[in-house]
Amino acid sequence: MKTAFVTDLGSEQNITTFFLVHEKEIRNTREGKPYLRLELGDRSGTIEARMWDQFEAAAKDVNRDDFVKVHARVEIYRNKPQLSLQQLRRAKPEEVDLADFLPHTSADVEKLYAQLSESAGSIANPWLKKLVNGIISDPGIAARYKRAPAAKVMHHAYLGGLLEHAVGLCDLAKRVAAHYPELDLDLLLAAAILHDVGKLDELCYDRAIGYTTEGQLLGHIVMELETITKAIDAIEGFPANLKTVVQHLLISHHGQYEFGSPKLPMIREAMVFHYLDDLDSKLAAVRAALALDSGEEEWSAYSGALGRKFLRLDEFLKSPSAKAEGNVPNPKLFP
Amino acid sequence: MKTAFVTDLGSEQNITTFFLVHEKEIRNTREGKPYLRLELGDRSGTIEARMWDQFEAAAKDVNRDDFVKVHARVEIYRNKPQLSLQQLRRAKPEEVDLADFLPHTSADVEKLYAQLSESAGSIANPWLKKLVNGIISDPGIAARYKRAPAAKVMHHAYLGGLLEHAVGLCDLAKRVAAHYPELDLDLLLAAAILHDVGKLDELCYDRAIGYTTEGQLLGHIVMELETITKAIDAIEGFPANLKTVVQHLLISHHGQYEFGSPKLPMIREAMVFHYLDDLDSKLAAVRAALALDSGEEEWSAYSGALGRKFLRLDEFLKSPSAKAEGNVPNPKLFP
Amino acid sequence: MKTAFVTDLGSEQNITTFFLVHEKEIRNTREGKPYLRLELGDRSGTIEARMWDQFEAAAKDVNRDDFVKVHARVEIYRNKPQLSLQQLRRAKPEEVDLADFLPHTSADVEKLYAQLSESAGSIANPWLKKLVNGIISDPGIAARYKRAPAAKVMHHAYLGGLLEHAVGLCDLAKRVAAHYPELDLDLLLAAAILHDVGKLDELCYDRAIGYTTEGQLLGHIVMELETITKAIDAIEGFPANLKTVVQHLLISHHGQYEFGSPKLPMIREAMVFHYLDDLDSKLAAVRAALALDSGEEEWSAYSGALGRKFLRLDEFLKSPSAKAEGNVPNPKLFP
Amino acid sequence: MKTAFVTDLGSEQNITTFFLVHEKEIRNTREGKPYLRLELGDRSGTIEARMWDQFEAAAKDVNRDDFVKVHARVEIYRNKPQLSLQQLRRAKPEEVDLADFLPHTSADVEKLYAQLSESAGSIANPWLKKLVNGIISDPGIAARYKRAPAAKVMHHAYLGGLLEHAVGLCDLAKRVAAHYPELDLDLLLAAAILHDVGKLDELCYDRAIGYTTEGQLLGHIVMELETITKAIDAIEGFPANLKTVVQHLLISHHGQYEFGSPKLPMIREAMVFHYLDDLDSKLAAVRAALALDSGEEEWSAYSGALGRKFLRLDEFLKSPSAKAEGNVPNPKLFP
Amino acid sequence: MKTAFVTDLGSEQNITTFFLVHEKEIRNTREGKPYLRLELGDRSGTIEARMWDQFEAAAKDVNRDDFVKVHARVEIYRNKPQLSLQQLRRAKPEEVDLADFLPHTSADVEKLYAQLSESAGSIANPWLKKLVNGIISDPGIAARYKRAPAAKVMHHAYLGGLLEHAVGLCDLAKRVAAHYPELDLDLLLAAAILHDVGKLDELCYDRAIGYTTEGQLLGHIVMELETITKAIDAIEGFPANLKTVVQHLLISHHGQYEFGSPKLPMIREAMVFHYLDDLDSKLAAVRAALALDSGEEEWSAYSGALGRKFLRLDEFLKSPSAKAEGNVPNPKLFP
Amino acid sequence: MKTAFVTDLGSEQNITTFFLVHEKEIRNTREGKPYLRLELGDRSGTIEARMWDQFEAAAKDVNRDDFVKVHARVEIYRNKPQLSLQQLRRAKPEEVDLADFLPHTSADVEKLYAQLSESAGSIANPWLKKLVNGIISDPGIAARYKRAPAAKVMHHAYLGGLLEHAVGLCDLAKRVAAHYPELDLDLLLAAAILHDVGKLDELCYDRAIGYTTEGQLLGHIVMELETITKAIDAIEGFPANLKTVVQHLLISHHGQYEFGSPKLPMIREAMVFHYLDDLDSKLAAVRAALALDSGEEEWSAYSGALGRKFLRLDEFLKSPSAKAEGNVPNPKLFP
Repeated sequence: MKTAFVTDLGSEQNITTFFLVHEKEIRNTREGKPYLRLELGDRSGTIEARMWDQFEAAAKDVNRDDFVKVHARVEIYRNKPQLSLQQLRRAKPEEVDLADFLPHTSADVEKLYAQLSESAGSIANPWLKKLVNGIISDPGIAARYKRAPAAKVMHHAYLGGLLEHAVGLCDLAKRVAAHYPELDLDLLLAAAILHDVGKLDELCYDRAIGYTTEGQLLGHIVMELETITKAIDAIEGFPANLKTVVQHLLISHHGQYEFGSPKLPMIREAMVFHYLDDLDSKLAAVRAALALDSGEEEWSAYSGALGRKFLRLDEFLKSPSAKAEGNVPNPKLFP
Repeated sequence: MKTAFVTDLGSEQNITTFFLVHEKEIRNTREGKPYLRLELGDRSGTIEARMWDQFEAAAKDVNRDDFVKVHARVEIYRNKPQLSLQQLRRAKPEEVDLADFLPHTSADVEKLYAQLSESAGSIANPWLKKLVNGIISDPGIAARYKRAPAAKVMHHAYLGGLLEHAVGLCDLAKRVAAHYPELDLDLLLAAAILHDVGKLDELCYDRAIGYTTEGQLLGHIVMELETITKAIDAIEGFPANLKTVVQHLLISHHGQYEFGSPKLPMIREAMVFHYLDDLDSKLAAVRAALALDSGEEEWSAYSGALGRKFLRLDEFLKSPSAKAEGNVPNPKLFP
Repeated sequence: MKTAFVTDLGSEQNITTFFLVHEKEIRNTREGKPYLRLELGDRSGTIEARMWDQFEAAAKDVNRDDFVKVHARVEIYRNKPQLSLQQLRRAKPEEVDLADFLPHTSADVEKLYAQLSESAGSIANPWLKKLVNGIISDPGIAARYKRAPAAKVMHHAYLGGLLEHAVGLCDLAKRVAAHYPELDLDLLLAAAILHDVGKLDELCYDRAIGYTTEGQLLGHIVMELETITKAIDAIEGFPANLKTVVQHLLISHHGQYEFGSPKLPMIREAMVFHYLDDLDSKLAAVRAALALDSGEEEWSAYSGALGRKFLRLDEFLKSPSAKAEGNVPNPKLFP
Repeated sequence: MKTAFVTDLGSEQNITTFFLVHEKEIRNTREGKPYLRLELGDRSGTIEARMWDQFEAAAKDVNRDDFVKVHARVEIYRNKPQLSLQQLRRAKPEEVDLADFLPHTSADVEKLYAQLSESAGSIANPWLKKLVNGIISDPGIAARYKRAPAAKVMHHAYLGGLLEHAVGLCDLAKRVAAHYPELDLDLLLAAAILHDVGKLDELCYDRAIGYTTEGQLLGHIVMELETITKAIDAIEGFPANLKTVVQHLLISHHGQYEFGSPKLPMIREAMVFHYLDDLDSKLAAVRAALALDSGEEEWSAYSGALGRKFLRLDEFLKSPSAKAEGNVPNPKLFP
Repeated sequence: MKTAFVTDLGSEQNITTFFLVHEKEIRNTREGKPYLRLELGDRSGTIEARMWDQFEAAAKDVNRDDFVKVHARVEIYRNKPQLSLQQLRRAKPEEVDLADFLPHTSADVEKLYAQLSESAGSIANPWLKKLVNGIISDPGIAARYKRAPAAKVMHHAYLGGLLEHAVGLCDLAKRVAAHYPELDLDLLLAAAILHDVGKLDELCYDRAIGYTTEGQLLGHIVMELETITKAIDAIEGFPANLKTVVQHLLISHHGQYEFGSPKLPMIREAMVFHYLDDLDSKLAAVRAALALDSGEEEWSAYSGALGRKFLRLDEFLKSPSAKAEGNVPNPKLFP
Repeated sequence: MKTAFVTDLGSEQNITTFFLVHEKEIRNTREGKPYLRLELGDRSGTIEARMWDQFEAAAKDVNRDDFVKVHARVEIYRNKPQLSLQQLRRAKPEEVDLADFLPHTSADVEKLYAQLSESAGSIANPWLKKLVNGIISDPGIAARYKRAPAAKVMHHAYLGGLLEHAVGLCDLAKRVAAHYPELDLDLLLAAAILHDVGKLDELCYDRAIGYTTEGQLLGHIVMELETITKAIDAIEGFPANLKTVVQHLLISHHGQYEFGSPKLPMIREAMVFHYLDDLDSKLAAVRAALALDSGEEEWSAYSGALGRKFLRLDEFLKSPSAKAEGNVPNPKLFP
């Protein structure tokens, strides 16, 4: 239904499409004439919009966090596109597809979930298998597991990102466990599937990605601890010490106190899982940093999450050696 | 039943009493003659013991962590008392009172528990009151709440110490809440009574104070979170947000990530409770350091928990001023 | 004398009142016509002002940090009020009440000081009582003690804030000392009254709150150490060791090296006083953060001093449970 | 050739001179009329420039990082000067003197280099002397050693700054070695001359000071390690252990791991050299901070490198004592 | 040739075998009679030895770090075995097999080296392949690569440990690169094979594992940087930027400044390699900690390298649940 | 008067000399016979002593910290010399020279003090000169300034060490100020002479070097601040701002909060002085570490103060290159 995205808008174009309202104000021009100023957005970005005439009725009906339908003309002001609104109204529920307003994974979510279920099914330990299967086959959990992002900004910060991360960790765990025979793959798989289940409620991701109040007060580690503990207790005969081991895997997976783990990993698999989780998250953050246009040919944008920027290796290896040129000043200036 | 404690033993005395076996070995003298060497202890300390003759039968029957009955003579060796054992056998259960073997509070535990219950009863919020009363009137919990120490070494490290700490915090909370009217006393009292309930299982304190395996893997914050969450869920109608607030109080009470709190206090009462808990613990640690004989008149023993030693204020204020004397060397040497 | 405060200004209103000049510049319009631009303020906030005509004479006479009398019209520009000045002149001293230009405590300063004196009078130790009374009855000190803020931004950052903090600490100390009989209340009261006396000179608070050059070079701990040491030395017979104890209380009250205490608290009362001072300051910072409008219903503004934001507990407990709603996307979007 | 510098431009002046292009864009006025906007600069600063008419041809030929010749008029817009361009073309190589576009030392570079060579010549140890002389007499190195800055922003951040720093360190090392007879001056001099040679390639300083890609990936310590190691290996018979000592001096000169030294100084001269290098750099940073106009009479601008601001001692000692005045509020306000 | 190892010695046994001398002193008995005291060792541990008679000749000829042949009787003193020497002489070179005196890998070193070569051979990039092959086929390097441990105490601290670690990393890199198609496997393999080559000279491992003086002054990162840089420069046409990339991989592989990396990983493969290297080292440290007898059934010895102890998962899962038992005191004491 | 020092004692020697009593106990032999055990010491070290017969009278009269005269025989027990006392009595004051019992500088203290006075005299600023001269010509201060050590263990830990350090800093300051003309030498000299005056009372050094109680509670920075402030206030007309500058120099000279400076250096001379003080102290600590016999030829003992050991440069440069030999195992073993 949505026909034009923010990043595609060209100068002097007339458009009719849908947006989410991020901000709304009534302003006055220097001459004292009021106008409506909106910030509109979709999953590709945001744009300023102004409505100069007959905006009063629409302005009453439309509020922040509403979806709207607009008819507008794209103009360029201070080198940036801007919308001059001619018509504006609230959208009807059936006109809007949420997927147009939040970034989402490019993978097929149902296929990913099938892979997750397959990994769960491959767990040999009957107690762990029952636990993991119970969680991911819960319809309330499954629906959100397919939508949730893995974070607000750090890594996999898009709808479906959490699932992508979990499926990736299952595969990675299998490969690493094949290398170290001393590792218990069942525990690694259970950790991969369960370790971020608390994010389903820590984050909210209806229209934009943010934190719930409960999420800020408790954090996903504590939230999933409650969920998983109850699931374990609902399984009759689940061994008490295995329960402790699962709980330890969950609470220690951030690896360090200062990252919110109340215990350091003290089980071999807990330590290894922390490494894999950290590696997969960091690598996703690097990928995201490299995907942004940093304005520098050989370097990514600076990643606040990683405290550095990353080399675009291909560009660097292709470029003639900086060293060969040296810094010899004169010949270089006016070739 | 126990008649002589380690700290009371005098030279050349003959004793008949009970001890806990801390260590046991068979050693050889230089001449190759075997003898039995034990380290025996009670709540007041430990002492070396040797049995030179006819120890074989007793040695077979007696092991580390057993209680024993001995008949022995106290001798002084290298300035320290030592036992020369004449008779030795395992004690019978009914001969032993555990209280003789672990340090315990000097307060009356039943009175303390009555005070705790009174504080619980003074909570106005009906949900919190129901929760707290439910916990402390659970017989399994109450029995252990009356025995548990608050820590292995840091503070209140004796039987009944946890209860003493909780009762003290209730009183302190009342005083501080009377000063700051913005504070919700109910939350502070609930925190005071519940915040260390996980220690009932984190620590073991049958014969000596130590950590359980589960305690090391999860810690008391995570352990009590499970206990309290279940108690809340068993109360029909308990408000969801109040549950989140109680959980936040529990998980944030260490105040900093590096002390094992997965969240910083973000509720006013959580921040204040952390201060009170920390103050009461530290002050108990100072009290313990000052109680030890440090060999220095004006200074306590060095407290590892606090990273410093503390001044014995009374001694210092009584002493003639160091400054008045100065460091003037000659006249001071041979007055 | 001051009739209109910045936060009360309404659109299209004509006002005649007094302000403090925070900034002054002559600017040109795009057409090259010069005009006078001022930033004016009072204790409630600041506002931009422009004078388009006949500003030359006034501009010569008026400078930054002057008080001015203005006749002006309030206009709205870019959604914010702004003053269009019609008349402008320097204010005469007798026209200005400083209290209109700096935020100040809502309490009655004289009553607070009487409470402080009463606490001082309750000190039992004759030497400490003489010392503390001497300090707070010094007219030069008393005048400033009634005006000084406790900080520039961290806590109690308003005129009279320091006094409010000290009086509060006296009361808190009495309550806590009643709980811990081992504590010497006299020392806690002396610390409460004297520990920030150096701020009288570390800060300047004539028109705005800032730091003096001396304050930046020495800090209030060092500054008050000099004041109190001299006051002690002026008391004949003051015990040398008690002097050392008072000095230690002063220099250790920040509790940690990185907060500018050259010694850690090594006296029981010094440690406790540090806790109380820290608690009272932090709680005041939380109070200030909650008092600001953060634009979020359930959360305070982010407090830089505390490194977090705080929950508005009442709002949260009143709100329907976030958890009950869950993150179920579709039904929520178009109810 | 360059006749007018940015900091000298006065209102309504007509100028013909050369600049470096820092930024270039085509923008539209509100009415949709395009114009060329440039940011132009020289060693004294930067200025905005606009060309309203007939800019198309020039705009095609001119790019960021080009030198240009302009004919323009200086106008004042929002209190800041701005250029209205009438003519614009790329400069020819022979028209431009790079020294006009980058800040540079006020000292005579050739004289400084002669001093450096003299210090090198004063080294007694024949191996070290041969090594150091070989490096600084290499024409490729010498040309760049005379141009390189010592840093991008921290200290000596101007052309010739590195040389100034090295020459200063040689002199300082001689003075300090004269004080501590246990120190080997030869090692200190070798370190002073060689320790930042890697900066010749870590930084680029053709038109502005920045980091090369190689510089970011390796850092000057690693880069100079390669240069100096090869120079040593080219000297037949150079003692193996002396080589290790020189390498250690280079890699440890930042003094701490977190500043990029892979080893702490473990040789007396390495530790001393680290102190001298650090002192000279920090003092240069203080000098730079004091040279900026901070808008405060008694204090320098805040130095990010040093985490504080510095007192202008002369101003402070000249000023009437702040303390004498005190904070007595009333008399001060309207003198 | 060696027939009896320290850990196998039983009481009252007569032995004839070889040891390494760790310490040697002449002591006097209380009666003033001199005797020879040695500390002797092999790869399994150390033991005290005394020679009471006719030791003078042997004592002259035998020194610390010598191999000796002894004829002795095992006695038990203070519960520990001790040797009473009857005959003692220096061993002849051909009598000693070094492998008896240093712990070594249980794997077949030649097979491991063949695997390393195979991984080197699988590198696709011709320049990297040539570089890596050149290094590992150098006979001087190969001989030591087959002997060197990976560390003194942290991980793989036995002969052949470095090779085991490198071969393991090659396999792990292949698995992980198969999971993340964005990664360049060639760079990971080159890093795996080359990243610790500096340890061949940083450590000495002739008789015991220690650090060379050069190793302490430079560290293996700097040492291998020199080796690999020279090997690269010897390959004509090796691309300059690829050289920089290889150097960056080497210097950044410790991942953080405080672990001696002068640069953080800024290339994707450098970051990933750091994770793999760290994981493999830490896991080896856990393996070593679990292999030691800690005297606790469920916990490993405390690992200083990891700052914690690790759970013996199998023991824990097998044991009856601690929780089920609880801490109920009475019934547990006398079962 | 003292004829034999601990380090000079040879086996079976009979001696008559003086010692300081470090410890005293009455012990029993295994057979129950009591004897007197002392630890005796002088400036060169300590030794155990036993008196087997007729010790009762002497034991009553002699206590810890007394000087004693002994007649004894040196015996060797467990390879260490030990005294068998035949006669023992307290020494008379006139028999003892304190210099025999504490390590002291090898320099001539009076000459050093004359140099210090000369530096004080060279101060040009009349106020600073008056201040500094007043301090060092105070007889009470001078007497202790000539005796005090600079620290208990860190650096210059011997009688006269503080003076040596101060005189060294004066000379170093002159050299460095000659290099940086922007520095005010007067301030540096005043700092050099005054910055550790508080150590005269922070430490006690009558018989052994330790801390006074006052020193532990206040520290030398706070203690000297009081001394110097009073000396300034006693000088009529001393400029208020110069007083602030001197106070800032004193309190900031440790350079960082965590080393007990309540303010960072914010005056150029304060920053430089901190560097010089730190350098001189650290270099003295290196000197002390190198002076100890570490049992390693090329390395000093590990210095706890510096967190590392230091290379003996001369030994290392003299030794045949370790690298040349390499780690080639076989030929090295049996040369």
